[in-house]
Amino acid sequence: MKRALALAAKARPISPPNPSVGCVIVRDGTVLGEGFTQKTGSDHAEIQAIKDAYARGGNIAGATVYVTLEPCSHYGRTPPCALRLIKEKVARVVVACLDPNPLVAGRGVAMLRQAGIEVQVGVLEQEAWQMNAGFMTRMTEQRPWVRAKVAMSLDGFTALGNGESQWITGEAAREDGRRWRCVAGAVLTGLGTVLADNPSLTARVEGKLQERQPLKVLVDSSLRVNAENRFFDEGQVLVVCVQKNDAKIQQLAAREAEVLQLPGADNRVDLKALLSELARREINEVHLEAGSILTGEMLRQNLVDELLVYVAPKILGEGRHAFKLPAVQSLSDCESWILAECTQVGNDVRMILRKRK
Amino acid sequence: MKRALALAAKARPISPPNPSVGCVIVRDGTVLGEGFTQKTGSDHAEIQAIKDAYARGGNIAGATVYVTLEPCSHYGRTPPCALRLIKEKVARVVVACLDPNPLVAGRGVAMLRQAGIEVQVGVLEQEAWQMNAGFMTRMTEQRPWVRAKVAMSLDGFTALGNGESQWITGEAAREDGRRWRCVAGAVLTGLGTVLADNPSLTARVEGKLQERQPLKVLVDSSLRVNAENRFFDEGQVLVVCVQKNDAKIQQLAAREAEVLQLPGADNRVDLKALLSELARREINEVHLEAGSILTGEMLRQNLVDELLVYVAPKILGEGRHAFKLPAVQSLSDCESWILAECTQVGNDVRMILRKRK
Repeated sequence: MKRALALAAKARPISPPNPSVGCVIVRDGTVLGEGFTQKTGSDHAEIQAIKDAYARGGNIAGATVYVTLEPCSHYGRTPPCALRLIKEKVARVVVACLDPNPLVAGRGVAMLRQAGIEVQVGVLEQEAWQMNAGFMTRMTEQRPWVRAKVAMSLDGFTALGNGESQWITGEAAREDGRRWRCVAGAVLTGLGTVLADNPSLTARVEGKLQERQPLKVLVDSSLRVNAENRFFDEGQVLVVCVQKNDAKIQQLAAREAEVLQLPGADNRVDLKALLSELARREINEVHLEAGSILTGEMLRQNLVDELLVYVAPKILGEGRHAFKLPAVQSLSDCESWILAECTQVGNDVRMILRKRK
Repeated sequence: MKRALALAAKARPISPPNPSVGCVIVRDGTVLGEGFTQKTGSDHAEIQAIKDAYARGGNIAGATVYVTLEPCSHYGRTPPCALRLIKEKVARVVVACLDPNPLVAGRGVAMLRQAGIEVQVGVLEQEAWQMNAGFMTRMTEQRPWVRAKVAMSLDGFTALGNGESQWITGEAAREDGRRWRCVAGAVLTGLGTVLADNPSLTARVEGKLQERQPLKVLVDSSLRVNAENRFFDEGQVLVVCVQKNDAKIQQLAAREAEVLQLPGADNRVDLKALLSELARREINEVHLEAGSILTGEMLRQNLVDELLVYVAPKILGEGRHAFKLPAVQSLSDCESWILAECTQVGNDVRMILRKRK
């Protein structure tokens, strides 16, 4: 299953909106075939592994199949994988995690068991869930998984008081941050970031623009963005506002950007409605890369699932804070997260924090 | 040499003011004896390793000796180790680091070479230097190595605005922090910390008071501390002030605390003079555990060699900053450190940062 998870990781930049799944077919301790989810509409992991086994000249009847997500049971963009495994007469299927997709949700496992195949569920379940946290969240809560990326100094500042922020972290941490955009379905930012930093916010690996680009989403309540901004150069852009403005919409349309009106309370964009809309558009993971106001507001509304924090060993003394949040009155009331990972990236620290369940 | 370094680490809580040294004696790939520095006045690492070899029934003539610091050449509290190695007729001595003690400083190596022993210097030199950073700094700069410990939230606060700070980090990080006090010759703090937290600042391991306690040093310019404070309960205390006050000195004397007057500029304690005084008292490492003002001032005066930072994955929104420092005007001017280590301790992150050379 560990090997299947490693294969699943390879699918992350290509499989969305499908979940990233890995599959290993084994008999008597020998690997017969391996595979992972291909691009949408193409093979699921199980089919790739079966094809791999055939290519190696093998026969998988009687074999054991390790798969990180329950085989599908429905005719979607491809025929059901459970049916194919039955047809191949495998003896046993080990599943890490059930598929919460209402079209599957246990039916895959039931179908296999009905055909007399032994099925075991729950091996490395948490790891498999986390690998598809976005898909899982979209299926069960009709919203994407939101990861907020923050780069800050040791004393918690994202910029000097005068706004200078390029660069606090080193090149290795910045490259690492851009790689996370590649696995997201959307990159979400605010007007302040676009105006201050003029970022492209594209998914790049070693400077190379990736084939699959996340949707770029800009929260801009009063449509004040400049359509000439670099943000509109590459990829698909969605601008979300409270009040429309025909002239600006025309300028943005000329840049092939879509404008969506989502008025919420206090003349601000309804962020919950925005996340629902992104889920409706089959976006599993949102990469939030914004300033303290939007990041703080997302945190305050409890809409952030994961924090990806880069800390540079620098002391600024004073500056702009990473999160604009109301001060807590007692330590027992503060936002408390689980430290899932801490790693050295170049001369900076990367932390991955998740919500305390 | 790696094994010798691991042995040296065991000496850290007992050897000061002597350096912590490890020694391994090897012949034909077989370890004949091992040792590390004992308490002051007792055996150095080489003598322990020779005794160990004899206890195992071995003879070390012709053997190779790996030692993390140059063998001493002078009659100090014990006779010279170089002389003993010559007497034992070892063939080769591999030294990680020369001893900067002006009484040694290459004489140990010269003595061995003169006796026809092959000597190699510089194997894992940096690691060995770092292991005795305190001793090295005291010998070469006549001041101790200063490590500043800070525990803070993800957004860089050490306490809420109302002063609440117990606890931001978890028990594992706090226990880890107390262990660092055990290797220090002195714990340095400021009046604010003693008044606000009433800490004992003792060296404890799993709640158990250690035999060797660091000197507790309190910077208290106007002698405003309360002599009833828990700070004076255990261990030796030195209070450093600008202005004496006979009544307070008497109260402190009753608590067996020494008072030292070290007036500096702006009616503040002369921190550089304090460090010189601590070095004169044979203190190698100072563990600074103070609030933002004293920590900030030590940083500003360039008196901190290492930062030991615990970051809790909590967001406070607002609060007290870890370092009170003047704001920098450009990122190129900010305090920039080398990330020597980052580790997960419980649910917190521990970073060790050192000065950029």
